[in-house]
Amino acid sequence: MSAGARDAGADARTAMRVAVVGAGAVGCYYGGMLARAGVPVTLIGRPSHVEAMRRDGLRLTTAAFDEHIRVEASSELAAAAGAMLVLVCVKSTDTESTGIELVPHLAPGARVLSLQNGVDNAPRLAAVLGRPVAPAVVYVATEMAGPGHVRHLGRGELVIPSDVGAPSSTDLAQAVDTTPAPVPLEEAGLASADIVALFARAGVPVELSGNVLGALWGKLLLNCGYNAISAITDTPYGRMMTLPGIAQTVHDAVAECLAVAAALKVTIPGDVWAAVERIAATMPGQVSSTCQDLRRGKPSEIDHLNGHIVRQAERLGIAVPLNRALHALVKALEAKTAA
Amino acid sequence: MSAGARDAGADARTAMRVAVVGAGAVGCYYGGMLARAGVPVTLIGRPSHVEAMRRDGLRLTTAAFDEHIRVEASSELAAAAGAMLVLVCVKSTDTESTGIELVPHLAPGARVLSLQNGVDNAPRLAAVLGRPVAPAVVYVATEMAGPGHVRHLGRGELVIPSDVGAPSSTDLAQAVDTTPAPVPLEEAGLASADIVALFARAGVPVELSGNVLGALWGKLLLNCGYNAISAITDTPYGRMMTLPGIAQTVHDAVAECLAVAAALKVTIPGDVWAAVERIAATMPGQVSSTCQDLRRGKPSEIDHLNGHIVRQAERLGIAVPLNRALHALVKALEAKTAA
Repeated sequence: MSAGARDAGADARTAMRVAVVGAGAVGCYYGGMLARAGVPVTLIGRPSHVEAMRRDGLRLTTAAFDEHIRVEASSELAAAAGAMLVLVCVKSTDTESTGIELVPHLAPGARVLSLQNGVDNAPRLAAVLGRPVAPAVVYVATEMAGPGHVRHLGRGELVIPSDVGAPSSTDLAQAVDTTPAPVPLEEAGLASADIVALFARAGVPVELSGNVLGALWGKLLLNCGYNAISAITDTPYGRMMTLPGIAQTVHDAVAECLAVAAALKVTIPGDVWAAVERIAATMPGQVSSTCQDLRRGKPSEIDHLNGHIVRQAERLGIAVPLNRALHALVKALEAKTAA
Repeated sequence: MSAGARDAGADARTAMRVAVVGAGAVGCYYGGMLARAGVPVTLIGRPSHVEAMRRDGLRLTTAAFDEHIRVEASSELAAAAGAMLVLVCVKSTDTESTGIELVPHLAPGARVLSLQNGVDNAPRLAAVLGRPVAPAVVYVATEMAGPGHVRHLGRGELVIPSDVGAPSSTDLAQAVDTTPAPVPLEEAGLASADIVALFARAGVPVELSGNVLGALWGKLLLNCGYNAISAITDTPYGRMMTLPGIAQTVHDAVAECLAVAAALKVTIPGDVWAAVERIAATMPGQVSSTCQDLRRGKPSEIDHLNGHIVRQAERLGIAVPLNRALHALVKALEAKTAA
């Protein structure tokens, strides 16, 4: 391959637009990192953020830099129209409603990634969109520091399926056909390796995995252990875990989740209990997103965290009294702060 | 028996002083009812209440009347000195410290009743006082409406052991002696029937029971189901039980308590589940005492409610994750509101 061919390839990639649907702290971080590397990015979010980003660009503050980055910004989902990669970063509570609005604007070959909490957003979104959606496991700590201003606090890697773009996952209809028709190149969309390469340009590590569902469950367990308790007690993780009886309660809640995961034949990678310990050790000052939502009087994602465990457990006939209690208590507080 | 003898007996009873140690909402109600019936009563409580009661008497407001009742009032435990019946109504957290201060002031024949929440106050108090203490189960809804002003909201009956004053319970030392020495009459103290008669004069029904411990556990179960959740969600019982998942959580917490009670061979009288339902139905607007304590930034009795279950369960090797969680969450909120 000549140097000229490589350049042409690089140009093609540069021209490929990425849309971020739900430009909150997670969406702005990944969108900002890509835009900073020269990828055309459209951030779709709330008007207050959009106005600020149109005026000043996206401000991205990390330990290494603090920059204003030029991005396209819109509060309309129609702005996703030209994108070949769509990162869906809305709350789990908004997956279906966002999907329904997004459908008419997706390009035929657009690849959709779900960068959301919970374990079932990708299939829920796929059902609404009528096309495959690949789940991504997001390991990042970020927060919105103001309109159009995202602050990076730690980590940043993604895990995505190793078979994105393979026939079995790119087109569910083909999966039932033993002799699939060739997919037109312009509609085939990005494959796993393309996504890795794209993010690599932006300095974002993307790991490929044959067990993304297990990794999503690994995150779900941590969220089920920490989020509700941090929210109910309005306490950051570090201090929370030193309170009498709380560490044991986190442990008991995670154990209930593991029983549900086992019944669902989900294999969770890594050492779960070490991961539980690590949260308090590495993010002692952090309160959970659920806690932040309650503080702001906003609906939380608890229905897709402990609430998901409760629904699955009821279906499977498994007792999860602690997850039910934590879910119910957060819902009660949510109703109060919203009232 | 002549009419004169009956009068003399009535006078003797009238002259017998009752001391209430811990003149909060429960103590002021029972002390007030006795005083209203002509029994000399000394209420021992906090200076703000004592001042008001010395100035205006105790104000007792019920559905039937609203009266200022003459009582002796003191903030010193020494004021219990002349009493033949001492009603201990302090919080479970203050049992030992109150007992230690009370010891030197108790008359030799004084009968001590514990009108407290929890199931182990009587033995804890007896250990400190070095004399028998009879537990009473209190079924009353009252609140302090202001300094020296108690409001009665519902019920009011007591359950006490049928063997108060019997040799086996009046003097624990005698219980190991097969031929007990006769107890001097002036030191024998009141027996169960005397206490029933005394309260009957005041219109307070007192039931005798051979299973007061079971009845105390019956109340404990309800407190373990309702108190913490009402406190955590800052919600009255009626609305609380309509919130999604909460009724099931109350049920699950009570079921854990029942497992501990069964291991301790405690037989709980009546229909536990009907009693659970009844709380929300009969007191829909009431928040728990634990909730009231959190609102005021005061230490709650949770260590003697769900906390008692956790300690017993740990000793017995029984899993009570929900009671541990509820206890731990209330303790966390308590630490916050006290801070």
